Amino acid sequence: MPELRKDPITDRWVIISTERGKRPVFFIEEPPPPKVGMCPLCPGNENMTPPEVYAIRPDSPKPNTPNWSLRVVPNKFPALRIEGELNKEGEGLYDKMNGVGAHEVVIESPSHGATFTTMTLPDVQQVFIAYRERILDLTKDTRFKYIMVFKNHGSIAGASLDHSHSQLIALPIVPKRVLEEIKGSFAYYRYKDRCIFCDIIAQERDDKVRTIIENDLFIAISPYASRFPFEVWVLPKNHEPYFEKHDREDSYFGLGEILSLILKKYEKVLNYPPYNFIIHSTPHGEKDGEYYHWHIEIIPRLTKMAGFEWGTGFFINPTPPEEATAYLKEVSL
Amino acid sequence: MPELRKDPITDRWVIISTERGKRPVFFIEEPPPPKVGMCPLCPGNENMTPPEVYAIRPDSPKPNTPNWSLRVVPNKFPALRIEGELNKEGEGLYDKMNGVGAHEVVIESPSHGATFTTMTLPDVQQVFIAYRERILDLTKDTRFKYIMVFKNHGSIAGASLDHSHSQLIALPIVPKRVLEEIKGSFAYYRYKDRCIFCDIIAQERDDKVRTIIENDLFIAISPYASRFPFEVWVLPKNHEPYFEKHDREDSYFGLGEILSLILKKYEKVLNYPPYNFIIHSTPHGEKDGEYYHWHIEIIPRLTKMAGFEWGTGFFINPTPPEEATAYLKEVSL
Repeated sequence: MPELRKDPITDRWVIISTERGKRPVFFIEEPPPPKVGMCPLCPGNENMTPPEVYAIRPDSPKPNTPNWSLRVVPNKFPALRIEGELNKEGEGLYDKMNGVGAHEVVIESPSHGATFTTMTLPDVQQVFIAYRERILDLTKDTRFKYIMVFKNHGSIAGASLDHSHSQLIALPIVPKRVLEEIKGSFAYYRYKDRCIFCDIIAQERDDKVRTIIENDLFIAISPYASRFPFEVWVLPKNHEPYFEKHDREDSYFGLGEILSLILKKYEKVLNYPPYNFIIHSTPHGEKDGEYYHWHIEIIPRLTKMAGFEWGTGFFINPTPPEEATAYLKEVSL
Repeated sequence: MPELRKDPITDRWVIISTERGKRPVFFIEEPPPPKVGMCPLCPGNENMTPPEVYAIRPDSPKPNTPNWSLRVVPNKFPALRIEGELNKEGEGLYDKMNGVGAHEVVIESPSHGATFTTMTLPDVQQVFIAYRERILDLTKDTRFKYIMVFKNHGSIAGASLDHSHSQLIALPIVPKRVLEEIKGSFAYYRYKDRCIFCDIIAQERDDKVRTIIENDLFIAISPYASRFPFEVWVLPKNHEPYFEKHDREDSYFGLGEILSLILKKYEKVLNYPPYNFIIHSTPHGEKDGEYYHWHIEIIPRLTKMAGFEWGTGFFINPTPPEEATAYLKEVSL
């Protein structure tokens, strides 16, 4: 069983994947090249994944067979386990709990080589609908305090399979970074009676120098204090606390439009970079959603710049967000 | 002039290096191979660095000439600038200050290929003495609130030059991660009247499963909630708030002994991994040093495991610290 352990100094929780137990050789040797035709996420190989928990199948209703356009399956090598009660325990001055949670893989397309930039917008929209459906389902499980949706694109960004996919992790705690954002935006709300993200959007629309693109519903900006070169946030223009309570499905269409445009711009400007994106949304245990505003943070992994930042939480960004904005805005697609 | 900008939601400061202004091509193209014999950190090339601010020269007292055994020079491409008053300014709802600070390079050895594992222990000791001298000097400048000492070893860990070196950054703010540690250890101290690091050391010496090695003065442990596989902390066994107030120089000898042993163990177990280390010490503005305990955090950069963690502050560690300890403890050197 994996464990969640708390750093006693900073109260940061870490998942220790005891079952995976990666030995040193894992970090030293190159992984074997993937076998052609043996992608476990491709149609026809449904038996290579755990049974699906959600799928979009326009024609056939039979689960775990081909002819799907999107599938969600439990991760075969989960960081957390769905079974069991949540047990919290001390270990001397330390605190831990057993690694109860869910870890799912969203297979975004049946096509092995598809990406968010080659898929049609309705297909991208489907992916967001799948996120929502899985979040709403997992939220019913009272053991889970936060559902994190993220995507690793490219092996440098942590993807272990080529076939385009994203991941959901349901956690028995709210991660520290999310708590900090909630705390910060709550403090602002108490002081100003306004959502800080709404105020940021208003200022960015005035300033213009960090706004890359917008449509009716969404805006993409380079954040003022960007940690990483070409970091981009995509936010709904109107106040929306929860990603998953977006009930007008056309808003996911608008989101897909903006996100795929940003990724196309990355491809042109940064030559197909690996990237991560993470959905930040109000934890469902928060009393109300007045002060937090869901958004997606996209980080291209331009690793040459990585440094001591990872260990200290302190970042040096060599590309001002205003310059990154200009490059992304002006590139022709 | 570089800028320090604050993320308005989480209060995290970021250095935006406006002068460097790295264009997209920088992230795409491979850097040109270094020119042989043209290392700016090698003896004979003293004119290729800014004039030295500290040096150890057993024979010749003349600065910026060869025959040194260690040199400290300002970084030629500093993230922060030493000149000017500290100006704090608003920009709508955002906050910034000009990038006043110091950024220095410690050239640890005249030998181009030397590393902490090939240098003699007295030479490693010299490096720590140099850190102390530079910290004590920079601390006199009242504009600086925190001096951060760190080392990037290997290009994956962010080193842009092969010649073994470390860096000092003097900052006009205390970085968020350091503040969090101070806050956490202060809360523990108020509750228990004891230093949390002293308690951790006591528990680890009892438990044994995460203690890798110790000598008279220092102990090396795998932290209970390790964020990264094979992360190691080196701590003085007795309570010591400040790295730089270590007035018995033989304690730096003992530190060098432990640190170079850990790095030798990394070389054997992890096949010469790139790594970062960071010295964590009490900010000199803290009222007293009862509650914080300086230490060095070492992170081997086994990048295949990097993932969404960087963006969220949430870590999944695939190697339990107890297993990492066993590998590091048992390897014969």
